[in-house]
Amino acid sequence: MPTRRQLANALRVLSMDAIEKAQSGHPGAPLGMADMAEALWRHGLKHNPANPGWVDRDRFVLSNGHASMLLYALLHLTGYDLPLSALEDFRQLGSKTPGHPEYGVTPGVDCTTGPLGQGIATAVGMALAERMLAQEFNREGHNIIDHRTYCFVGDGCLMEGVSQEACSLAGTWKLGRLIVFYDANGISIDGSVDAWFSEDTALRFRALGWQVIGPIDGHKTEELDAAIASARETVDKPSLIICRTHIGFGSAKVDSASSHGAPLGSETVAKARVALGWEEAPFVVPEEIRAAWDARALGYAAEEEWMRRFADYEAAYPKLAKEFLRRTKGQLPNNSEAIFAELCTSQAKETNPLATRKASKRALDFLVPHFPEMVGGSADLTGSVGTMASSQKPLDPTTYEGRYLYYGVREFGMSCIMNGLALHGGFLPYAGTFLSFFDQAKNAVRIGAMMGVHAVWVFTHDSIGVGEDGPTHQPIEQIASLRMIPGLDVWRPCDSFETAVAWQAALTRMGPTALVLSRQSVPQSTRTAETMDMVRRGGYILRETGGTPELILLATGSEVGLASAAFDELAAQGIAVRLVSLPSSQVFERESQEWRESVLPHSVRARLAIEAGSTDFWYRYVGLDGAVLGMTGFGLSGKATAVAEHFGFTVKHVVDLAREVLSRAPRSPK
Amino acid sequence: MPTRRQLANALRVLSMDAIEKAQSGHPGAPLGMADMAEALWRHGLKHNPANPGWVDRDRFVLSNGHASMLLYALLHLTGYDLPLSALEDFRQLGSKTPGHPEYGVTPGVDCTTGPLGQGIATAVGMALAERMLAQEFNREGHNIIDHRTYCFVGDGCLMEGVSQEACSLAGTWKLGRLIVFYDANGISIDGSVDAWFSEDTALRFRALGWQVIGPIDGHKTEELDAAIASARETVDKPSLIICRTHIGFGSAKVDSASSHGAPLGSETVAKARVALGWEEAPFVVPEEIRAAWDARALGYAAEEEWMRRFADYEAAYPKLAKEFLRRTKGQLPNNSEAIFAELCTSQAKETNPLATRKASKRALDFLVPHFPEMVGGSADLTGSVGTMASSQKPLDPTTYEGRYLYYGVREFGMSCIMNGLALHGGFLPYAGTFLSFFDQAKNAVRIGAMMGVHAVWVFTHDSIGVGEDGPTHQPIEQIASLRMIPGLDVWRPCDSFETAVAWQAALTRMGPTALVLSRQSVPQSTRTAETMDMVRRGGYILRETGGTPELILLATGSEVGLASAAFDELAAQGIAVRLVSLPSSQVFERESQEWRESVLPHSVRARLAIEAGSTDFWYRYVGLDGAVLGMTGFGLSGKATAVAEHFGFTVKHVVDLAREVLSRAPRSPK
Repeated sequence: MPTRRQLANALRVLSMDAIEKAQSGHPGAPLGMADMAEALWRHGLKHNPANPGWVDRDRFVLSNGHASMLLYALLHLTGYDLPLSALEDFRQLGSKTPGHPEYGVTPGVDCTTGPLGQGIATAVGMALAERMLAQEFNREGHNIIDHRTYCFVGDGCLMEGVSQEACSLAGTWKLGRLIVFYDANGISIDGSVDAWFSEDTALRFRALGWQVIGPIDGHKTEELDAAIASARETVDKPSLIICRTHIGFGSAKVDSASSHGAPLGSETVAKARVALGWEEAPFVVPEEIRAAWDARALGYAAEEEWMRRFADYEAAYPKLAKEFLRRTKGQLPNNSEAIFAELCTSQAKETNPLATRKASKRALDFLVPHFPEMVGGSADLTGSVGTMASSQKPLDPTTYEGRYLYYGVREFGMSCIMNGLALHGGFLPYAGTFLSFFDQAKNAVRIGAMMGVHAVWVFTHDSIGVGEDGPTHQPIEQIASLRMIPGLDVWRPCDSFETAVAWQAALTRMGPTALVLSRQSVPQSTRTAETMDMVRRGGYILRETGGTPELILLATGSEVGLASAAFDELAAQGIAVRLVSLPSSQVFERESQEWRESVLPHSVRARLAIEAGSTDFWYRYVGLDGAVLGMTGFGLSGKATAVAEHFGFTVKHVVDLAREVLSRAPRSPK
Repeated sequence: MPTRRQLANALRVLSMDAIEKAQSGHPGAPLGMADMAEALWRHGLKHNPANPGWVDRDRFVLSNGHASMLLYALLHLTGYDLPLSALEDFRQLGSKTPGHPEYGVTPGVDCTTGPLGQGIATAVGMALAERMLAQEFNREGHNIIDHRTYCFVGDGCLMEGVSQEACSLAGTWKLGRLIVFYDANGISIDGSVDAWFSEDTALRFRALGWQVIGPIDGHKTEELDAAIASARETVDKPSLIICRTHIGFGSAKVDSASSHGAPLGSETVAKARVALGWEEAPFVVPEEIRAAWDARALGYAAEEEWMRRFADYEAAYPKLAKEFLRRTKGQLPNNSEAIFAELCTSQAKETNPLATRKASKRALDFLVPHFPEMVGGSADLTGSVGTMASSQKPLDPTTYEGRYLYYGVREFGMSCIMNGLALHGGFLPYAGTFLSFFDQAKNAVRIGAMMGVHAVWVFTHDSIGVGEDGPTHQPIEQIASLRMIPGLDVWRPCDSFETAVAWQAALTRMGPTALVLSRQSVPQSTRTAETMDMVRRGGYILRETGGTPELILLATGSEVGLASAAFDELAAQGIAVRLVSLPSSQVFERESQEWRESVLPHSVRARLAIEAGSTDFWYRYVGLDGAVLGMTGFGLSGKATAVAEHFGFTVKHVVDLAREVLSRAPRSPK
């Protein structure tokens, strides 16, 4: 039987070999964390390599994602569908082993990581999802949800503010099933961390309400075993196991930043093999070591046992079991189409001006009781952003009842936790803040989009319409920045009806959506049955005078009402004009070329786009001959109406601009 | 003589009155913090209302910026150029009293605040600047720099991760002259913070190496005085004074979130007047209270005394004094034009391919010795981003020698600290990270741009050219997002020479600049004396076949070389083609219409833009008839060359696209 050190060395050697072959990667962390990984992955980690989607598996997040080869070696050796050839293709185009772990690319990777700190923050969301799902579905004698969330973090993760935000909430939420291994190797890319990370991490985490274990020797199996046992015993506090380790363990570059981010070099690897007592050729793992790592039989048995228990549960609680399966598969309720139809019909009836954030609140009040998977929240702006449905109760961290999360003033942590809730399964997270604070959450929204999570960000106070709070709170470039995140659908509805459609789109799309909503009241557009249906296409003709238009006005959200008033004026002047509402350019761009041409004929060049945000985005739709009424500088503090007027968002100015565009744009250049 | 409570009440009543008149604002925090403000501002705060720019004044940052009326009341009463009429115009368009404090708008406001947590992070930069400037210029018996940085923070500031990042560094850097008052009122917008901010803040800050004082009663002057005295005595640790206060103190909405963000209402204000024993009409402050607040005489005397000391210093150290004045006025050295000319000439000579990040490192190696105001740094990527000049030493927090800052993995905190260094004066901060991590720093760059700080962000690894690290590390939307931040100049140079020009532009511009640099090597463009001069204009004709072009290729950075190779091929096919390099669209857009038309003639519609980033931005330059070769999804992990090929960044594909554009674009539509 191989020793545990030998088993850990298999991870080390595979990591070195793959990085050496790729001539790219981060060997230091895999070498340093191999013993931690062996202690966790071979001793009580609940997983089934044959089914990476097993809902009651333990989750594992490698927050220091640059150690990706450690994870790939673990997945390979324990028996996931990750053959040796994939390891040999480490970091090559099209391989299952990209530079950093990517959810959806590699079986067994529970979360995309790389940008430091976000992995642990996402793990907090997973650990919360586990407790909430257990609260909702477990019954006396039937613990169908009963797993843990494990996370490896490095110094860098704990320097990033996002980890502070999420770990503070993990303490508040008493997430005892979250167990974090801190790879305290004292080295980051710039060298020994003492000069930039001198804080007392143990004390800090105690201050956050965590159980802190260690520092232990992260290379001693008995210390690791004891620490893990102690962490597993603690139910009301997350645990941080501080593991003192040596980056680059086993190599001549041990304890040196030089082992962090570049291949060790063939000579250093050769020497490390000797030091580790490893005699095999590159990528060769002795059979008995392979056998000791192989987790397939155990994993299969574990899931089998769970399936038997689930069958018992199903027999005892057939309706609940059915709902559990629906929820954890991410399926909408069977009657959801009818629910959406009712919502849209109801919201189409509104005739009084209403802020779209308030229309969104109404939509949520209606929707949330029908979709128990929805978990709401806000970064301390609940009343303003309208994310708490009337039926929702705040989370109670002693029982995990309540499906509304008060995230505090933590936009970035909130967004990572949303990703974690979505990744875990069983929940559809949505949460809100002001659009200007999207900035703080940006990278989490991006990573969420990269993972394709089903989550909804609610960004309100979406323009200079914020008024008195002034330029720090008035988004300018944020709407366009959101639209440029690949894979994210952005909706900026213009009234209550478009808001209802946006929510429908957000809930039915199995991916991430951002809703961009006004603080101020907006008028309701008059709609025909036809234009109502067209909203779903992201961009459509809201009004037109008829015939081939001489001029097209494009607008979104709070500027549609303004454009509509200008439309009246221009029409009265005898101009053939068309008003296009473009609530979601992403959705519009996925429509057929025919649809897009029917809405925006290529030959009509007199185009004016109106949006109280950065102008840059809109040239895509108005070209070199059109114009954009938008913002090219920061906003100003003042009454919203005064600010709007100051920046030219008036009917007169729109009409003047439109006439100017008309006068200079070529007519039908073809 | 009025009591200190009465003096504090003047702040309270002015705040209530202004918010009531505006029918907008945040009364709770001013009411709660008035006693803290009285204790600080009337007892030892060193400032001169007649000269808000006095370099040796204490700095004051209101990190919970929504309490702006407290600061405006302080500035008004102590004698700044902020008349009562400005208070009466609180939050009105064009007033000096915007909703949140704005640097450059209101005399005496040292920092724009509003987005929580960033104020304290910026204050850390100011406190560091003070110590570094003292180290550099003070001489035995001549303490010309000898002031403190004070900051008020609320619960929300301490929830935001950015405060953790910066406060950790403040502890590491032993910033004993940073004194932070924590307005621990236990209330945030969503209510009592216990449910989302349960951590032990005192313990956490002790873990960060701070002196923690209190909790004290934030309404008891004797406790406040003792706390401040104790904080001032401590020289090697920043101090956090935890003040237990009552939000909305004196009003019926005390201790309630309802006092936070909305006017109290005239009835509540009237009752609060009675409770506070305040008998005057709105905006009326009794003369003896005004007199007790008036800090003009003391302030004048303080600066006078300093000027005498500075005169002595000048006599003893004339050269140093001259340099001190240059530095603190933000002026470049007299010979800077010659320095830049030498740099540009030298970098124009490079003929071998070189990554622009490496060209930037060379520029810094050359520039830094000439510009001692430059303070470099990186968020733990020093070697990769090339921000440490060969002449630089790391900061030594015992002596404050060394002008290179290891920020650790803290992009957001780093950027706030850069803002603080720049705001303080005497330093020109620059620092770097990977462009994909700009996301984490975004809002600090935005607020820096809003304040117009003179700082330089160095963002390297600027595209899929990152290669193996994969999509988490490959920027897509980041370049365009940077370009849309109002007031920020963005440069994406294509070779060593453009990189030199970009650095010159960044140093000579009295505002913020971001440099976007390649990881991978790029070829050097061949240049005439004429095209060299044109680089400064942000966009220019790099190459052309002559005559009116049929086709324009536009490119930036690492794609200019690709475009140039395609240019050769197209020219060989007999096409009249022009290659435009557009390293800075902001600078280009500030050029005359004539210049822009000469580079991009309106009538030439066959245009192809090439940039390995989000395509959206480029339609502004290619219109409806052109095309963009860019990225519309996330990148991939793989060898940079393989990734580039996968996404079509090849000469053949550029040529094919160009021919397609040529075939369909109208020719001279006028």
